[in-house]
Amino acid sequence: MNPPLEEVTHMDNVKLSDDGRSVVIIDQTLLPNSLEYITLSTREEMFEAIATLRVRGAPAIGICAGYCAYCLALQAPHDSFDDFYSRWEEDCRFLNGARPTAANLSWALNRMLDVAEDHRDMPVETVLAALKRECAAIHEEDMEMCRRISEYGLSLLRDGDGVLTHCNAGPLATSRYGTGQGPLFLAKERGMDIRVFADETRPLLQGARLTSFELQRAGVDVTLICDSMASIVMKNGWVQCCMVGCDRVAANGDTANKIGTSGLAILAKHYGIPFYVLGPTSTIDMDCPAGENIKIELRDGEEIRSKFFAEPAAPQGVRCYNPAFDVTDNSLISAIITEKGICRPPYSESLKKLFE
Amino acid sequence: MNPPLEEVTHMDNVKLSDDGRSVVIIDQTLLPNSLEYITLSTREEMFEAIATLRVRGAPAIGICAGYCAYCLALQAPHDSFDDFYSRWEEDCRFLNGARPTAANLSWALNRMLDVAEDHRDMPVETVLAALKRECAAIHEEDMEMCRRISEYGLSLLRDGDGVLTHCNAGPLATSRYGTGQGPLFLAKERGMDIRVFADETRPLLQGARLTSFELQRAGVDVTLICDSMASIVMKNGWVQCCMVGCDRVAANGDTANKIGTSGLAILAKHYGIPFYVLGPTSTIDMDCPAGENIKIELRDGEEIRSKFFAEPAAPQGVRCYNPAFDVTDNSLISAIITEKGICRPPYSESLKKLFE
Repeated sequence: MNPPLEEVTHMDNVKLSDDGRSVVIIDQTLLPNSLEYITLSTREEMFEAIATLRVRGAPAIGICAGYCAYCLALQAPHDSFDDFYSRWEEDCRFLNGARPTAANLSWALNRMLDVAEDHRDMPVETVLAALKRECAAIHEEDMEMCRRISEYGLSLLRDGDGVLTHCNAGPLATSRYGTGQGPLFLAKERGMDIRVFADETRPLLQGARLTSFELQRAGVDVTLICDSMASIVMKNGWVQCCMVGCDRVAANGDTANKIGTSGLAILAKHYGIPFYVLGPTSTIDMDCPAGENIKIELRDGEEIRSKFFAEPAAPQGVRCYNPAFDVTDNSLISAIITEKGICRPPYSESLKKLFE
Repeated sequence: MNPPLEEVTHMDNVKLSDDGRSVVIIDQTLLPNSLEYITLSTREEMFEAIATLRVRGAPAIGICAGYCAYCLALQAPHDSFDDFYSRWEEDCRFLNGARPTAANLSWALNRMLDVAEDHRDMPVETVLAALKRECAAIHEEDMEMCRRISEYGLSLLRDGDGVLTHCNAGPLATSRYGTGQGPLFLAKERGMDIRVFADETRPLLQGARLTSFELQRAGVDVTLICDSMASIVMKNGWVQCCMVGCDRVAANGDTANKIGTSGLAILAKHYGIPFYVLGPTSTIDMDCPAGENIKIELRDGEEIRSKFFAEPAAPQGVRCYNPAFDVTDNSLISAIITEKGICRPPYSESLKKLFE
């Protein structure tokens, strides 16, 4: 039995507790086997939840960081701004160390710190009220951004289409619909008949654990495949486009996203299937001229050899190469869909226009 | 510490026991965590070992079936040919049911049955001697076939090359060097410096469990990757060709092999890297005109959802599509390497010549 669609697309993966003093999140590490909410009250609990990926997905981390900063502000001394700020800033700095490479974490924390700085001469109660508005604004802006990306993405789908997707950029990773998978949920809401194929996304299995969970729960027709099955699914004529999220887009449209994305784009080109990248303009880095300037994070080989497995799947000590991302050449991308509209090649021109 | 190279390339994954009355095999289901030999004496033990993939790989199954048939013949009544044959034929029929779709199983059993039939008028002791020669011949022919394929394949490699491979067609699956991975072991034996990238090969992980185990043990420079990482490995310029085995080759060169092979071939073409298929002429089916005539086996979705995992990686009941093989279009294949030589496009001509 699926819950009402809105419970999935509008599920609050990150929110304030009923008493407004703690942060409540879905513990994503327990999915898909258990859907559990946990409450984060202390800075140590918050740090642990972010560091161990209980909350994950760049926008969701930003939203969570905003709420965490607000709740920590409630706990700081309220007698003078200086006492308040020095303690609270230290808390925020501590939290920022939970995932040093997550841009949205420091972005959200800095946004909260800036608001406090702007209210330096006001009573602490006024500062707290401003911080509460700010963390709610971070959340609301993300919802609006996801909704707009999903609308633009949906305009590229027709009733009856099959869509292949990779990794997870749905409601759990963001707010509401998501980015890469946003149009799939919005299509369901509009009563369209869309058939989704979700790559399991080795080695961390976000497609199996999260994307197929979200889509199944929303009542979307979803079929889980191994990453190596994308070619036969395309050859069978079952998908009319690919939709993926993005981690960083260079000024020329080269796109870093979860490992496996570039291979998928090459297959799509071979089979004549449009390949769409969806993400907020905040992931477009106009200071990064091209893909070769994007540094690829290398992760521990244990994720390939043994993580998730009941016993090791590979011999002890065998060398592994485990890049977290790859870069898809702009020539393989049919369109980049942002909250400000749909960009088509040549991207060096169309992306630039977004920022004018 | 690696064993001497010869212990890997010449490891007897299937052999007769010291007393010559039982079959000894490496239990491949325990790899890579444990290398154990088990002895098969009764027909029930033999059936179970084949059915549960303790012995796997088409050639290895054929070799095992030959030795099993011989050992069962030793156990049959020896007073008259008719008594002997009726009991033994029943044993062979029983064994043939262990894997109904494994062509090499029935092929080897039929070959043994034919030899007995040819000796119908002789004493049972003479029949047994002929059967012993026949099962040894099946094994020796496979060794010779693998050696020749490996030699032809090696002629396509240069010192210092990187090679990307998929699934497992090495010593464990065959005898001695193997087919798809045969040239990699032979290169090592010749002192060449070859760097191998092995796809883990989801969902059954033959690349992680078997190929990386064999290559590591042989002292070959092997790096294990997830299937979705082949694109970035090729883009990095680390591989100069791909080498894979094959399950069935159509008369036009279209090739069925482990799922993921066709995607790999498309990536190789995109990056301008030669893509080589290696296998015995017995896998070339001249009665099968093209790939669309090859029926693809669909397997249980549990292999994707939960097999090997400590807990299910996907939500309960989520639909999976789990084809065991895909077909690589002949236009993507640079050469097909057999024990009779190297075939180049157009395959409808070059493959035909093999059988003239």
